[in-house]
Amino acid sequence: MSRVFRRFSSTITLKAAPPKAHFHRALPASSFPKGYLVTGIHAGVKKKPDVLDVALIVSTSDHPAAAAACFTRNAFKAAPVVVSEQILTQNRGRARAVVVNSGCANAVTGRQGMDDAWAMVRETDALLPPSTSPAENHTLVMSTGVIGQNLPISKIVQGIRSQATPARSLASDFSAWERAAQAFMTTDTFPKLRSRVFTINGTEYRMAGMDKGAGMIHPNMGPSNALHATLLGCILTDAAVSPQSLQNALTYAVERSFNSISVDGEMSTNDTILVLANGAAAAKHDGKVVEIDEETDKEGFEIFKSELTQFAVELAQLVVRDGEGATKFVTVNVKGAPTYEIAHRIASRISTSALVKTAFYGEDANWGRILSAAGSISVPGLNPDKVSVTFLPSDNTASLPVLVNGEPESVDEVRAKEILSLEDFGICVDLGGLGNEEATYWTCDFSYDYVRINGDYRS
Amino acid sequence: MSRVFRRFSSTITLKAAPPKAHFHRALPASSFPKGYLVTGIHAGVKKKPDVLDVALIVSTSDHPAAAAACFTRNAFKAAPVVVSEQILTQNRGRARAVVVNSGCANAVTGRQGMDDAWAMVRETDALLPPSTSPAENHTLVMSTGVIGQNLPISKIVQGIRSQATPARSLASDFSAWERAAQAFMTTDTFPKLRSRVFTINGTEYRMAGMDKGAGMIHPNMGPSNALHATLLGCILTDAAVSPQSLQNALTYAVERSFNSISVDGEMSTNDTILVLANGAAAAKHDGKVVEIDEETDKEGFEIFKSELTQFAVELAQLVVRDGEGATKFVTVNVKGAPTYEIAHRIASRISTSALVKTAFYGEDANWGRILSAAGSISVPGLNPDKVSVTFLPSDNTASLPVLVNGEPESVDEVRAKEILSLEDFGICVDLGGLGNEEATYWTCDFSYDYVRINGDYRS
Repeated sequence: MSRVFRRFSSTITLKAAPPKAHFHRALPASSFPKGYLVTGIHAGVKKKPDVLDVALIVSTSDHPAAAAACFTRNAFKAAPVVVSEQILTQNRGRARAVVVNSGCANAVTGRQGMDDAWAMVRETDALLPPSTSPAENHTLVMSTGVIGQNLPISKIVQGIRSQATPARSLASDFSAWERAAQAFMTTDTFPKLRSRVFTINGTEYRMAGMDKGAGMIHPNMGPSNALHATLLGCILTDAAVSPQSLQNALTYAVERSFNSISVDGEMSTNDTILVLANGAAAAKHDGKVVEIDEETDKEGFEIFKSELTQFAVELAQLVVRDGEGATKFVTVNVKGAPTYEIAHRIASRISTSALVKTAFYGEDANWGRILSAAGSISVPGLNPDKVSVTFLPSDNTASLPVLVNGEPESVDEVRAKEILSLEDFGICVDLGGLGNEEATYWTCDFSYDYVRINGDYRS
Repeated sequence: MSRVFRRFSSTITLKAAPPKAHFHRALPASSFPKGYLVTGIHAGVKKKPDVLDVALIVSTSDHPAAAAACFTRNAFKAAPVVVSEQILTQNRGRARAVVVNSGCANAVTGRQGMDDAWAMVRETDALLPPSTSPAENHTLVMSTGVIGQNLPISKIVQGIRSQATPARSLASDFSAWERAAQAFMTTDTFPKLRSRVFTINGTEYRMAGMDKGAGMIHPNMGPSNALHATLLGCILTDAAVSPQSLQNALTYAVERSFNSISVDGEMSTNDTILVLANGAAAAKHDGKVVEIDEETDKEGFEIFKSELTQFAVELAQLVVRDGEGATKFVTVNVKGAPTYEIAHRIASRISTSALVKTAFYGEDANWGRILSAAGSISVPGLNPDKVSVTFLPSDNTASLPVLVNGEPESVDEVRAKEILSLEDFGICVDLGGLGNEEATYWTCDFSYDYVRINGDYRS
């Protein structure tokens, strides 16, 4: 899949990204969580007619859904981030709906931007059935797209209002979930939607999630404060989890998933991952929903945390897979580290290095660049003579050591090229017994298309 | 200077880098420092015949030259970095020669690499006239090029030895300096050579310097420990400066020059800046050279430090100008910061952002990306509502505010495009009165050519 062009005196091979449409596929209706109505509509934020740009997710469960979030740590937080954070705090970790728009980030939009984000919240609140909750607002809001432009708010308001009419498209079937996922997309080439069925204490639960990424992807999110990239994600489950435990599980999961991916090393003003747990499938005790809680049901909580983490990894990997211009999917593992944080920092540095990523694009086993990137992180006690680097093919053939205990191997370049020509491969950097901690990062390559997409994004 | 190609369904405009040859020009012989013999030769590290790959710089001054250096902070320091650091320490800041090779970095080359670096030192030592110095070695060594491959050391040794014969090319005229600068080059498109005449306490001195860069450029060097990128630079002066004062002046200068530029955000295993001060033009007192010293001649030292800093900025800017694939030269100024360090970190983050740099390439005034990059640095007390961003044209026409006190301006896109279509322009980010400190960074854009050059560097 490549074509050759002559450029001035030199020749450029423009390698196309591999086809990605197959990463989106129909999912069984039974795998979606109970008690949610969702849709995606065309409100008019995006110019092209019929391109979906507003997603709505509404919990219809009687149980007030617990909600948790990880937000960008960027100093210039977009209005929807500020508003969602505020609502989550006011409601002590409860929310009943999520509204999302793509096409405009509502970031660095001054006072008008705050008004617009609140307008989206209030309009979505108006769609909800009456509840006994004392909370004033029930909806969390996310936006993604261009920074520094105001939302066409009257179009968005009108779009949300259309869901109060009999003609509304809010539903719970696969195609409704698919529409919602589509409305998240910006430069994404396929909607990112996954679902999962799991069991805790004999009860079956489900979770579904959608996210979007493509560019500005290098999240760094924490509890109520931590992503970098316009990465938006929303996970919905019909399990019942207490708000604090839900936040703890999400924080753990995000660190090992969305905070362990990089497309271009950019932290966005809007990065947000939300999770709602509406308890629609929860077992009841004396007619009341029992929430999974870290304090009272450690075992159940650990299962939930593990399921959420695996699911978040799956969603996060889709973002890398669809990274702007990406032709490769690379797993970077750093082991033998004294702490998880150090392993994570080194994996992150390798995953964001422009030189490493252009070498991936060129299918060049340039391990010197990998080592050079790793070495820019200061690691107390690191002995370069103990460090090893190995390339790991994804096709179950033999791995290829290129550096063993600080000494370069005589590398079979043909074999190296063979591994790097795969769409998926891995790299392992072993720090040589500084400790037993390890971290994994997922990244893509840096191609001509990344430059093309971002050299002319606004027009 | 652009051509259009059709790529699958989309069209790519491959914009060529502007011509850069005019940044190299003949310099007056009188502007070069006295007491140095220099040359560049083809030893055979590079395959193409007649391409220069080894530079030699020898001080012929009776006064033992003071030497100072800033080295990479990378954990995987190349052999020449380790060796030069050791010699500098052993000699208490004195050295009489410098040997440089391009084409192979001698990095991550294990024990053989160390032996090779020492061999380069010993061979160059053998060229020097006898001296009364008790030091065992007199030569500092630098290498740049591919990581993880051993030097063709016998070719290099033979090349250095050729300078002990009557046919040697070591000389002090412009063309000898030009040859030395040429031998530094890797993917550089022009040799980077500058000279300068200055006066301290009525005595006229000179300095000349050469450097190389192109890729892996984001230095972070400190006293005997601080660059990131394969940036090599060497500054020679005929002033006499005491070793400690020379190191202090260099550390200050490097922070505000080589540590304030970025091509691709990569810290190299080899980054090194050296300075020799051989005192060949120094005033003598009772027949003895008097060295400029911070303690005994504060005023003279400050003049020297200022001259060295301005000169280092000039050399550093040439590296950005010739950044791999660069079509733009952008000055990033951050002001109103509480400390220089914070201003420097924000300027650095903006200067390394792939999204900001691809927008520069696309001549897109996407200030949202600038702000988003700035915001990823944590600044205590920062109030987003006080922040302003301005585009500064280099042609003395009016500047263009795009964000004023946190509120986006209604930007004249035609005017914005006009500024960004210049080869040189600037950006000012004002943090809004958090303090009075400021920092300046120089960066380039991120183009198709960067990907082309680095996607296929080794072959």
